[in-house]
Amino acid sequence: MPLHIDTLFLLIDFLGVFVGALGGALSAVRETRYKYDLVGVTGLAFASALGGGITRDLILQKGPPLAFVDVRYLMAALAGAAVGLVFASRVGRSTERVIVFIDAAALGLFAVAGSTRALEAGLHRLPAFLLGGVTAVGGGCVRDVLSERTPKIFERGELYAIAAGFSAAMFLLCDWLHFSREISTTVGALCGFSLRLLALRFHWRTRPVRRET
Amino acid sequence: MPLHIDTLFLLIDFLGVFVGALGGALSAVRETRYKYDLVGVTGLAFASALGGGITRDLILQKGPPLAFVDVRYLMAALAGAAVGLVFASRVGRSTERVIVFIDAAALGLFAVAGSTRALEAGLHRLPAFLLGGVTAVGGGCVRDVLSERTPKIFERGELYAIAAGFSAAMFLLCDWLHFSREISTTVGALCGFSLRLLALRFHWRTRPVRRET
Amino acid sequence: MPLHIDTLFLLIDFLGVFVGALGGALSAVRETRYKYDLVGVTGLAFASALGGGITRDLILQKGPPLAFVDVRYLMAALAGAAVGLVFASRVGRSTERVIVFIDAAALGLFAVAGSTRALEAGLHRLPAFLLGGVTAVGGGCVRDVLSERTPKIFERGELYAIAAGFSAAMFLLCDWLHFSREISTTVGALCGFSLRLLALRFHWRTRPVRRET
Repeated sequence: MPLHIDTLFLLIDFLGVFVGALGGALSAVRETRYKYDLVGVTGLAFASALGGGITRDLILQKGPPLAFVDVRYLMAALAGAAVGLVFASRVGRSTERVIVFIDAAALGLFAVAGSTRALEAGLHRLPAFLLGGVTAVGGGCVRDVLSERTPKIFERGELYAIAAGFSAAMFLLCDWLHFSREISTTVGALCGFSLRLLALRFHWRTRPVRRET
Repeated sequence: MPLHIDTLFLLIDFLGVFVGALGGALSAVRETRYKYDLVGVTGLAFASALGGGITRDLILQKGPPLAFVDVRYLMAALAGAAVGLVFASRVGRSTERVIVFIDAAALGLFAVAGSTRALEAGLHRLPAFLLGGVTAVGGGCVRDVLSERTPKIFERGELYAIAAGFSAAMFLLCDWLHFSREISTTVGALCGFSLRLLALRFHWRTRPVRRET
Repeated sequence: MPLHIDTLFLLIDFLGVFVGALGGALSAVRETRYKYDLVGVTGLAFASALGGGITRDLILQKGPPLAFVDVRYLMAALAGAAVGLVFASRVGRSTERVIVFIDAAALGLFAVAGSTRALEAGLHRLPAFLLGGVTAVGGGCVRDVLSERTPKIFERGELYAIAAGFSAAMFLLCDWLHFSREISTTVGALCGFSLRLLALRFHWRTRPVRRET
């Protein structure tokens, strides 16, 4: 049932953009160093949600980024930003968990989507791996730089970028073993998703390269 | 007289780049946290003046950015940087007002120019609206990030980004109503220009999303 | 012997990427404000090594950046990042000098490579000059922004960006005088290389535009 799976992937893609925008809006509203206005919250929500995909498409140079061509991505980002703005003060711990859960699903799928598009553009597997990671973590990085901080994924944390890389790597491995695109995508996306959830659950964290002195 | 109007638009475009570079150079010279050298002032002037248009052209993917193809844009930016460097200590309040005035005119026109190019590239109205805003405020954002601060347009202020969005929206409305390109451009540019000047005059400011506690 | 010279240029190009990544990894490991993990060190190493060339290729819009097409660039960056990670604590003053030396060679060659590609893409000399500089200093700027600081080349220093600009300018002058590509490249690269080494040796520094008060 490839149609069903494609529809599911597209749905997770939009959900990922929605959740990315929601997370961006929430972190902008809660930022304590700055007093962001409506433009700031919306801008950071859009950067979080679409920054990774736009970076991917700028690198692949196959025409304007998908987010500017398929209006549904902007709609999803706008909806996420609006929900974040309106419900910021009412987002409790259980809602946070749902956000983290969907974000983990989107992380795996964005990584696989980035690698897929890279292969389709004729790139080798190593750049396709890198581009998968960039697609998954790029939005957060753009948001962090716009919020005047070093990207969180560069610091100690619960395997965010590593889960993205794991998704891309497993997808590329399946592709190399000539599995169908549906199976490769599912395996790849699930691997990163699971690793990220396990890391969050069991507090698996990367170690800082520089030790305490 | 479409020719006259086109010439006028081009003139405001160059003036906008000149004033953008001048403003970037002035803020770099006056920056108190860093000691920028000649390279820093020129770099920040260029980023302010050309960052928005370059971002727009990177997204549209219709060949190298206009600023790298039409040498007059680099010339205008260079002239703005040079004037900013030489006259930084002699810029008084009345000159500042002229700069703010021309900057407001450029804000409206840059927004319309961004939306126009987006429509010409076959994008829908919603992405064209977004790209108009990005074109108008992108240069300032790039400069702010390079100066190690969060974009000023994200914080409380006198409707800078909102005036740019208003310009793009009104232009797209006129275009949708099948007005001629000249009329749509004029109406769009004037709307953002007027809103920005009114906001400055009457201190209309956006509200921060996060309230004082 | 154009073949020999081309091979030599390519070798310096890869060495430059390797050294760029090595320098990026070392500065990430030594960063005191943050505790970068493996992802952070690798990310900053890649940004330092490849940021300039990627920016150049995004602007020229001739297909995906070279770093994503020719896998050897990623390999060189990966090797530099790995060496930086493993040997960070054992890099002494003499190794630092070798790094600075190779970095100066790469600075000149990257500037010339950027200008060459700009001319090949049909750009004028002034944008080609600018793009040469951007190629040479872009990686460091991207790294600085990702490390939450203003680009070092914008502040007082030993003629880093000016050496890059000198390389690009001398190359474009030779090209304008109809010298062969090999001679123009050699002269251009050597000029910036020498100027940078002389500036380091004799402590030639730019002056801050803003004086002490």
